[in-house]
Amino acid sequence: MSSTNLTLYHSPASPNSRRVRIVLAEKELTVKLIPVDLAKGEQHSESYRAINPRRVVPTLVLEDGTAIGEVPAITRYLDETFPANPLFGATPKDRALVIMWERRMELDGFAAVMEGIRNKVEGLKGRAIAGPHDYDQIPSLFERSVRRVKNFFVDLNERLGRSPYVAGKDFSAADITARVTVDFAANTLGLSASPEHNAVKRWYDSVSGRSSTAA
Amino acid sequence: MSSTNLTLYHSPASPNSRRVRIVLAEKELTVKLIPVDLAKGEQHSESYRAINPRRVVPTLVLEDGTAIGEVPAITRYLDETFPANPLFGATPKDRALVIMWERRMELDGFAAVMEGIRNKVEGLKGRAIAGPHDYDQIPSLFERSVRRVKNFFVDLNERLGRSPYVAGKDFSAADITARVTVDFAANTLGLSASPEHNAVKRWYDSVSGRSSTAA
Repeated sequence: MSSTNLTLYHSPASPNSRRVRIVLAEKELTVKLIPVDLAKGEQHSESYRAINPRRVVPTLVLEDGTAIGEVPAITRYLDETFPANPLFGATPKDRALVIMWERRMELDGFAAVMEGIRNKVEGLKGRAIAGPHDYDQIPSLFERSVRRVKNFFVDLNERLGRSPYVAGKDFSAADITARVTVDFAANTLGLSASPEHNAVKRWYDSVSGRSSTAA
Repeated sequence: MSSTNLTLYHSPASPNSRRVRIVLAEKELTVKLIPVDLAKGEQHSESYRAINPRRVVPTLVLEDGTAIGEVPAITRYLDETFPANPLFGATPKDRALVIMWERRMELDGFAAVMEGIRNKVEGLKGRAIAGPHDYDQIPSLFERSVRRVKNFFVDLNERLGRSPYVAGKDFSAADITARVTVDFAANTLGLSASPEHNAVKRWYDSVSGRSSTAA
């Protein structure tokens, strides 16, 4: 492991925080970890809003005080600054394909699970969308999210039937986001790939064998 | 202008296509343009699905046939492959901040406008979410989108009151996405920044003076 002068504000239970923790483990980097207690609303505190106006975790703070929010921005910063164990391949074409596939995992998978939770959980009433503004829950969005997540598993199985990893022949940032999404769906909505989704199972077993999985 | 061996599948009226056309204009690149007729449903054709399984425009196709979808992936590919007139700054830190701010413009602005349209327009009935699966419109999402877009203008004005451009002191990909979002909101939802949003007005006038604005 290589130690850095970076600080990560995160929450142990937050799946977006987990995406970054897995990236750090894959790249064998250690950072100073500062927990943000979401249940206590620490993300709405003045001090946290000063580094993240969207009031979401995680945020990476550099030695000069620059605060970087949004997981793809944090991941990309880490990958460029510490090139060992690349998570976006080696060429502009590789990198574009990883960005594309990670985004599809986010839009069709991660965001669908998150929408389900935010429109269902009692503790998130009035907080159906992350950020500085309050929005009421819409119960039909929970039902729609369940259908979206089921469709996500169908599409993921189709993709992994044609490709060893999500973005191609190598493990990448897209696999990290997909893997966190699968666990997030199972742990919160109780939804998993069907037994006939062999490609998802093969891939999940493969990525679960990596040491970063405990992050 | 520099000519390339790239092909862009796009739609003249699509705001996501416009984001890429403005990037191309800023970088003074010409590509082969192939229109996809969304009104006729060409995005659902077998040939288009072969290059974009999410059935959305735009898609950039490289000389070797590699198809790159999703605007941030296309933009990043173009910026890395053709370094003149950079749209992500010069350092890993600059790039992370542009990715972060562009994503905030997308999540809180562009996506909110799109959600409003998709849940309102007659021709998009059953197509409330882009992609291979059909989802019914939810009328309350249209109402919510209007509130979200109004909040977006408040937040954008606050940001531009502290920064010349969206991601900092230089024009970047984040300004392109924000500018397309502002026009998209005006043209489809009839929503604009309030007269008291002076910072938005100052910035909009500045980015409108660029020659790429016609793209």
